[in-house]
Amino acid sequence: MDKHEIRLSGSGGQGLILAGIILAEAAIIDGKNAVQTQSYGPEARGGASKAEVIISTEKIDFPKVRECDIFLSLTQKSYDQYSKGLKEGGIMIVDSIVNANNAKNKVYSAPIIDTAAHVIGKAMVTNIVALGALVAISNAVTREALEQAVLSRVPKGTEELNKKALEMGYIMGENAIK
Amino acid sequence: MDKHEIRLSGSGGQGLILAGIILAEAAIIDGKNAVQTQSYGPEARGGASKAEVIISTEKIDFPKVRECDIFLSLTQKSYDQYSKGLKEGGIMIVDSIVNANNAKNKVYSAPIIDTAAHVIGKAMVTNIVALGALVAISNAVTREALEQAVLSRVPKGTEELNKKALEMGYIMGENAIK
Repeated sequence: MDKHEIRLSGSGGQGLILAGIILAEAAIIDGKNAVQTQSYGPEARGGASKAEVIISTEKIDFPKVRECDIFLSLTQKSYDQYSKGLKEGGIMIVDSIVNANNAKNKVYSAPIIDTAAHVIGKAMVTNIVALGALVAISNAVTREALEQAVLSRVPKGTEELNKKALEMGYIMGENAIK
Repeated sequence: MDKHEIRLSGSGGQGLILAGIILAEAAIIDGKNAVQTQSYGPEARGGASKAEVIISTEKIDFPKVRECDIFLSLTQKSYDQYSKGLKEGGIMIVDSIVNANNAKNKVYSAPIIDTAAHVIGKAMVTNIVALGALVAISNAVTREALEQAVLSRVPKGTEELNKKALEMGYIMGENAIK
């Protein structure tokens, strides 16, 4: 059985719900099962947002992520709030603006937000850059499936922009694991 | 405790994931808790798609809808596949194209798809018309919260179109409960 429990965290407006949906749809293209969950509680009003995805070769009975294998954080607030939920030996990926010095796990740090905003020039692709980095580091889905899922979800006319965002994410992810 | 378990079903491309997200965000605006879940399994490849939302005044421990209180179906295929999951006494809302003669529950039928495509003239607002009808029939969230959630999620420049879609949905829902 091959299973990944993934938590994507950051702030509202960074497109993490869409990132979760894309990741789940990529898993389906890979022939797996997936559940994408968005929980809103009192903390949803506090500025830290999260989206969760479970990917499995088997049927998924309990759809909520408890401890995750893969944790992404794009803001300090979401890191502080959710990083404790990562399993020992899990993969922690953070934006370079996040101070993760207290992490017990190995931390992969990459300038995701800055690259989206200044290298690609569109903050709206932050989530796609993040997905590229996450997949290059974790291999949670194949790159072929990820690209197909991204292209089926992004607005028409932004395909090339989003391919470039994915590509930058892959490069960043590959650099982070070197 | 006030709790609604809602299943939205139809075919891919009808925007039901977004409808689920909007419903969950409206519940948060109403001051409640919400979980939105998207499960993909072998059936996701078969053409029927579903999105689930739980809304509660209390903390939501198990995030997956088992039997729902409110069931929406926009296609015959999704009706056939998922309608059995509605509780006795639950609210069943179907598009007029759906034959729901075998239903044990009271059925509210409304021309959601046709109204979006031909009265409003944009099939892309099918999901918003459906939300209007669902909320007029079930009161799962307040209309004020629904409108606010819709306007924060739809593309810029489509606000008036989507307000009109909501309004048509409300009228249809009100007619269905008469």
